[in-house]
Amino acid sequence: MDARPSSDVTARVDALTSAARGAARVLAAAPARAKDAALVEAAARLRRTEGGILDANRGDVERARAGGESAAFVDRLTLTSARVDAMARGLEEIAALPDPVGETIAAWRRPNGLEIAQVRVPIGVVLTIYESRPNVTADSAALCLKTANSVLLKGGSEAQATNAAIADALRGAVEASGLPPAAVQLVDSGREVVRGLLGRDDRIDVVIARGGEQLKRTILEESRIPVIKHFEGICHLYVDASADLAMAERICLNAKVQRPSVCNAIENLLVHERVAPRFLPAMVAALRTNRCEVRGDPATRALVPDVAPASDADWDTEYLDLILSVAVVPSLDAALAFIARHSTGLAETIVTEDLTAARRFLAEVDSAAVFVNASTRFTDGCEFGFGAEVGISTNRLHARGPMGLRELTTYKYQVLGSGQVRD
Amino acid sequence: MDARPSSDVTARVDALTSAARGAARVLAAAPARAKDAALVEAAARLRRTEGGILDANRGDVERARAGGESAAFVDRLTLTSARVDAMARGLEEIAALPDPVGETIAAWRRPNGLEIAQVRVPIGVVLTIYESRPNVTADSAALCLKTANSVLLKGGSEAQATNAAIADALRGAVEASGLPPAAVQLVDSGREVVRGLLGRDDRIDVVIARGGEQLKRTILEESRIPVIKHFEGICHLYVDASADLAMAERICLNAKVQRPSVCNAIENLLVHERVAPRFLPAMVAALRTNRCEVRGDPATRALVPDVAPASDADWDTEYLDLILSVAVVPSLDAALAFIARHSTGLAETIVTEDLTAARRFLAEVDSAAVFVNASTRFTDGCEFGFGAEVGISTNRLHARGPMGLRELTTYKYQVLGSGQVRD
Repeated sequence: MDARPSSDVTARVDALTSAARGAARVLAAAPARAKDAALVEAAARLRRTEGGILDANRGDVERARAGGESAAFVDRLTLTSARVDAMARGLEEIAALPDPVGETIAAWRRPNGLEIAQVRVPIGVVLTIYESRPNVTADSAALCLKTANSVLLKGGSEAQATNAAIADALRGAVEASGLPPAAVQLVDSGREVVRGLLGRDDRIDVVIARGGEQLKRTILEESRIPVIKHFEGICHLYVDASADLAMAERICLNAKVQRPSVCNAIENLLVHERVAPRFLPAMVAALRTNRCEVRGDPATRALVPDVAPASDADWDTEYLDLILSVAVVPSLDAALAFIARHSTGLAETIVTEDLTAARRFLAEVDSAAVFVNASTRFTDGCEFGFGAEVGISTNRLHARGPMGLRELTTYKYQVLGSGQVRD
Repeated sequence: MDARPSSDVTARVDALTSAARGAARVLAAAPARAKDAALVEAAARLRRTEGGILDANRGDVERARAGGESAAFVDRLTLTSARVDAMARGLEEIAALPDPVGETIAAWRRPNGLEIAQVRVPIGVVLTIYESRPNVTADSAALCLKTANSVLLKGGSEAQATNAAIADALRGAVEASGLPPAAVQLVDSGREVVRGLLGRDDRIDVVIARGGEQLKRTILEESRIPVIKHFEGICHLYVDASADLAMAERICLNAKVQRPSVCNAIENLLVHERVAPRFLPAMVAALRTNRCEVRGDPATRALVPDVAPASDADWDTEYLDLILSVAVVPSLDAALAFIARHSTGLAETIVTEDLTAARRFLAEVDSAAVFVNASTRFTDGCEFGFGAEVGISTNRLHARGPMGLRELTTYKYQVLGSGQVRD
């Protein structure tokens, strides 16, 4: 009855989660200086063992090339001396941030004299699942260590040797700083173990999914543990009737072409019909100057005849590329309805000089970040001033939008009494 | 291929969720006075239609009695004029609370001039699944309406007629106040529809599970939607070596016998060995005077010989009854280790006059609420001063411990610019 692989998998899952849970208990009580010392030491060890890391990476890269992976994939996988140094600097920057653990979020006194404090504490054990970029290994481990969470790191199998070399450096630093090395564990086993981990909601508190849509959907399907995920961003720019059109053009170019491959770039441009004739011909020309393809609805094509027609699917496609779909709308209400239908709830912006339009847009657009007269590209933990880039959540609960270190914590209530009992 | 019942279920699930989603959009923009007016009107209608509600309830109660339900079950199901009035007063109290929606949680200005505000907004669509108490219907609907969430109410089938009568009064009030009646919908269909709803993470944002353990485990098993749940509370009282023993006795009695059937009552009492000989004989006698059965470890039984032995299972059992398990521990460390092993993470308390012991207990016990010199029975939204009793979460993410109206909200970022683009 008891199949051997299954019991091996169970044992591996048990060992990983039990060690992580034990380390979490020790970490939670660790002072900030121990965690920061471990991060600084980890940066030093990454630099010191750079040769070994790059050797391991060369092996991964050769296997990926031989396996026929795309050039973009191989580029994301490839480490250089500069990239290792950037990783190390990342750890030092995280070490320098204030410690969110122990922060008092709120405190008050009840009429009966009870003193209640809501205090920030670690979440516990975090499972991070990501794809081929090896810098995510160092980055995720550092963010979890800073917030006193144990982390189980499951990177793409193509980066396994690289990730192992990076994780070795990190674990060595954690141990050298007097913290439990099981605070950072690499999950080097296959799909069955990951499936086993996703079932252990008794020992793992949250899953952070970083990577492609398919990976995230599979995790969501299989996980019994809450998943903080980041789904695609279909972001909108709406140019209102009252917009400063020069500003609208600058923001549109920035939001589309400055870095089209990221989630907070726009995919759909909506333009009020009153300004469309003045705005769209120059806007389309500017986009084309920046090698951006434009697809349009009939009204757009009537104004700029050589624009290709946008299909129904275009309005719901995250291109992550230099392609923009454009629609002319008769009103703010129509723009809001369009956004409600096609947005994925990440980020939208309006360009307007009209206070009522700005207020309605801010209030009625149900996205994690809603902008007035600014580029959606600012939807980012660092740009928001959070110090660290933990990711951007498309969940509505716990963490929404750009995530900082605080979003890797939870809280507990500490209550001081002097003998109070309840009536 | 297409089985008829399944397509009926799909249609019902589609209709419920589509209406709820549409109502949520309208509700989110509703001013506080419209929501409060609806709540006050709902209270008036509950009182006005009391006759019909009690008639419906009599039918439910008769069916439950005929079906052989227990006396306790029938009592929870039974409404009286006083209970209907209590429900109505509950709605009026919620109307009088401040509106959490629109509250600015934090606001700051970035060096580039962007003004960022983190603003509280509704979660969206809430599915509440609960058992037989009909007051939960009014209560859940009111809390969701106040926080501008659409609610799908799935109560126990034994209370179906009662819940329908209550929901009718609420929906009438919502409509009379100019808000969409689909903001409050009763799910009067069976298990298949509930299963269908639990799969619609595209249209339902959160599930709140109130009721028995089995119900909650089933929901967790089947739901693709995040579940805010409340699991059992195995709460501990630890009497430290330095405790004021008279205070310890008062707190122990309160935490165990004042209302033993609730989650924040204690199940395990730990006593430092140095004070056990002085403390335990009188404590056991006082518990027995209050008809509480005591079970003990060998050290406890050596001190109070007629105490029954506690089995291994006793330390992990939520009695919800007048039974207390007692263990003598050699140190604070031993108490902390015991709690880490047996607590369900809801609430624990220490009685001590020693500052270091108090500080270590607060820091190291990983429970939603940790008390010093006060009864665990204060683990409650109203006792914490939240105004409303939304429940007590044993989740670590989003909401932990006693929940107020704020825990029925999420946030978005509103960002005001003056043409900023990203470098």
